[in-house]
Amino acid sequence: MLVTKAVGIDDVATYVPRLYLDARDFAKERGIAPEKIAKGIGIEKMSIPDAHEDAATMAAMATLKLMQKNDLQPKDIGFIHVATETGLDEAKPISCYVQGMLEQIYGEGSFEHIGAPETKFACVGATYAMIDRLAFINSGWNKGRHAIVVATDIAKYDLHSSGESTQGAAAVALLLKENPRLMVYEPDSRGFGTRDDQDFFRPVGRTTAVVNGHHSIGCYLRDMRVAADAFRMSMLSSGLVTLSAGEGITDHVDRIAFHSPFPKMVEMAFASFLIHDWRGLPRWRRITRQTGPEPDRKSMADVEFYVSEPYREFRKRFTTTPEFKAEFEKKVKDSLEALKLIGNSYTASLWLCVDSSFEAKTNDLAGKRFAVGSYGSGSSAIVCSFIVQPDYRQVADGFSLMQDLSRRRKISVAEYEDLHEQRLDLHRGIEAPRNEFVLDRIGEKETDFGYRYYRFVK
Amino acid sequence: MLVTKAVGIDDVATYVPRLYLDARDFAKERGIAPEKIAKGIGIEKMSIPDAHEDAATMAAMATLKLMQKNDLQPKDIGFIHVATETGLDEAKPISCYVQGMLEQIYGEGSFEHIGAPETKFACVGATYAMIDRLAFINSGWNKGRHAIVVATDIAKYDLHSSGESTQGAAAVALLLKENPRLMVYEPDSRGFGTRDDQDFFRPVGRTTAVVNGHHSIGCYLRDMRVAADAFRMSMLSSGLVTLSAGEGITDHVDRIAFHSPFPKMVEMAFASFLIHDWRGLPRWRRITRQTGPEPDRKSMADVEFYVSEPYREFRKRFTTTPEFKAEFEKKVKDSLEALKLIGNSYTASLWLCVDSSFEAKTNDLAGKRFAVGSYGSGSSAIVCSFIVQPDYRQVADGFSLMQDLSRRRKISVAEYEDLHEQRLDLHRGIEAPRNEFVLDRIGEKETDFGYRYYRFVK
Repeated sequence: MLVTKAVGIDDVATYVPRLYLDARDFAKERGIAPEKIAKGIGIEKMSIPDAHEDAATMAAMATLKLMQKNDLQPKDIGFIHVATETGLDEAKPISCYVQGMLEQIYGEGSFEHIGAPETKFACVGATYAMIDRLAFINSGWNKGRHAIVVATDIAKYDLHSSGESTQGAAAVALLLKENPRLMVYEPDSRGFGTRDDQDFFRPVGRTTAVVNGHHSIGCYLRDMRVAADAFRMSMLSSGLVTLSAGEGITDHVDRIAFHSPFPKMVEMAFASFLIHDWRGLPRWRRITRQTGPEPDRKSMADVEFYVSEPYREFRKRFTTTPEFKAEFEKKVKDSLEALKLIGNSYTASLWLCVDSSFEAKTNDLAGKRFAVGSYGSGSSAIVCSFIVQPDYRQVADGFSLMQDLSRRRKISVAEYEDLHEQRLDLHRGIEAPRNEFVLDRIGEKETDFGYRYYRFVK
Repeated sequence: MLVTKAVGIDDVATYVPRLYLDARDFAKERGIAPEKIAKGIGIEKMSIPDAHEDAATMAAMATLKLMQKNDLQPKDIGFIHVATETGLDEAKPISCYVQGMLEQIYGEGSFEHIGAPETKFACVGATYAMIDRLAFINSGWNKGRHAIVVATDIAKYDLHSSGESTQGAAAVALLLKENPRLMVYEPDSRGFGTRDDQDFFRPVGRTTAVVNGHHSIGCYLRDMRVAADAFRMSMLSSGLVTLSAGEGITDHVDRIAFHSPFPKMVEMAFASFLIHDWRGLPRWRRITRQTGPEPDRKSMADVEFYVSEPYREFRKRFTTTPEFKAEFEKKVKDSLEALKLIGNSYTASLWLCVDSSFEAKTNDLAGKRFAVGSYGSGSSAIVCSFIVQPDYRQVADGFSLMQDLSRRRKISVAEYEDLHEQRLDLHRGIEAPRNEFVLDRIGEKETDFGYRYYRFVK
């Protein structure tokens, strides 16, 4: 018989660039009504990387922070596993560039014993990587070493495109180990929902994504519904949860964080989640007395239904009910505080939401079930859960995302456009680097053409 | 206590394009002495994909073959996990394109329950993916479902570049499950060796790799030495192997397959492996009586030493000893039969070697330890091992790589160059597609620009 160990997330370290673009400045410059961004999609500020930053420096910064605050040494680490859709090389993983940067601090060759792959699946990649690293530790194959999973991304769309207002950048490093202090992973609650779709992608050679925003919302909700069904089934069939009369599976979830391309998407996702879970329950009568009946699905496929006008209107009415509002306030709202100030950060977004939820300190989460709904275009969703540990505050009190966000420098739209179009020299960005890894130069010789050289600047 | 299950490789399916370029024709056209390719690096033919093929169609072909020959249904599969360095999109994994192709056969949505990430680490990516999928199954998190790991790659270098003679293409799909028929994985034998290096890479936006061949050989040997040391240590400390007086760890390895950018590299790798293992053993005196003493390493770092003239000369003399020859003949040689006829195929190469070893039928492998030495530039090596199962022949007799290779069509250098430079229309390649997945068209609209559409052609 296989006995499962307690494995999970021990600590989290976040990194955001020191620059931000104010969404109001941006809206004004683009001739968009400011409330369309602030209220329509829920974004107030967007994180913008400086000229010397890229997905690898951000990943290295988050990893270094995680190492330092836990006083970890290279020998303690078995894996540095990066997930990104801002890959820098088709063959070399960012993880290995990160290793090189860390070895500038910890000594050349100090990480030679590690595994360092990169995982790709749009914004859901880090959740895939996390589950695989946890399974590896759970199997006892880690020889006592911890794993670091790093989500790092720069969300970038063409200037003047519709996606431009959902840009952002961040990295999050998760420390995974046995007997974690923050949250223990529940292996019996995992559900996937995966479809070959074309809502958002970035063919090799393009620096910005091709996106069909409207369709992508439908894909997100479809995959999340499939994953949530599998999550529910898994919890029930394993005996992890037993439903009392009138209960839905969401009654057994105390907190939930979702992938957030923009905060408003999370409201839609959570509403769809609840509608699907509550539909057959006694409370549904009370809900539909307020909202009117859920529209007839007819022969529509999932995506078609979820983006249809009648369903959207129904969902909007649902979000005005006291029942929805209470659930959202209690289980979701805190997770979005940081996101409003960052914008999209693809793989990192979900884990920023998790961090944000813990930074809010609005109530005691010890012993509570914390679920995550992770989505990646293309497309795939994962829903899974954790149990928050008794002494989690000791770790969570060290989270510094909100503090970091308060110390940034605002840039002008002109400065943002210079950075976006890579008009600034690596060494002549907006802010002089200090105490950080920088992209120092890019190779130009025949044998190093395009190779990236990094350096730590004190 | 954690009890480990028997997990491993149940079956293997390979796919190679139906076209090949004869290395002699190529050498003649390029003004290279033919023996420089045939004997110097060990390549006789190179697999060349047709105009309608890419890394995704090849992966789908290998996966479909694996599904069909095992009569698997979508519900049996929990993961389709692709590893490649021929990625087609920075966000969307090839795995998901493969899912879409399979659903043309098995029904739309039939794989919606799967996980489908893509792993990147040059040529070692598939080994990373395999270990992670095995850990997932070993943890019992797979809910009884099997996993398919697919290695797929097209090795492509600039026309007239030094790498041009080591091109090739192939895909290999591995069926991973509990109680596998072919080989059981040994979790106590795994070693990694990873360094941030620049021997070979392909910055985003480039269609061909940047390679420093000489340096890459040194990196391969350095990482393999580190991984082999960890492999040895792991085997000994876990009690998996106990060394008798005068024994080396390689005495407990019955077969070994290596990543093979070109077959000659495997000879170098195995020689270095043995030199490192035998150096302190009684037999070393007998060896050095034939070869002369191993050159003094002085203060040279690993890579420097491994590419130094004196070491290379010593290693060459070592490969002429009867001791080396006997080991190579017994443990390695069979694995290279297919490779000579394919060329490099990056992630797929190692697993083609494993397949090839089983197709040779030169002796009974039941109960034997089969090790693999996997290397990816950038750089990382993994050494790990399996135990061949009693009834492995039932599976291995179904391997058809050598047969497939014998049925290919030879193309001219002119045809090869047309394919290389993508001068042929997708629908006007060299051979008309039959019974296969094809790349049918690439999106040109604003919302699907660069998206790839695939179709099954009967």
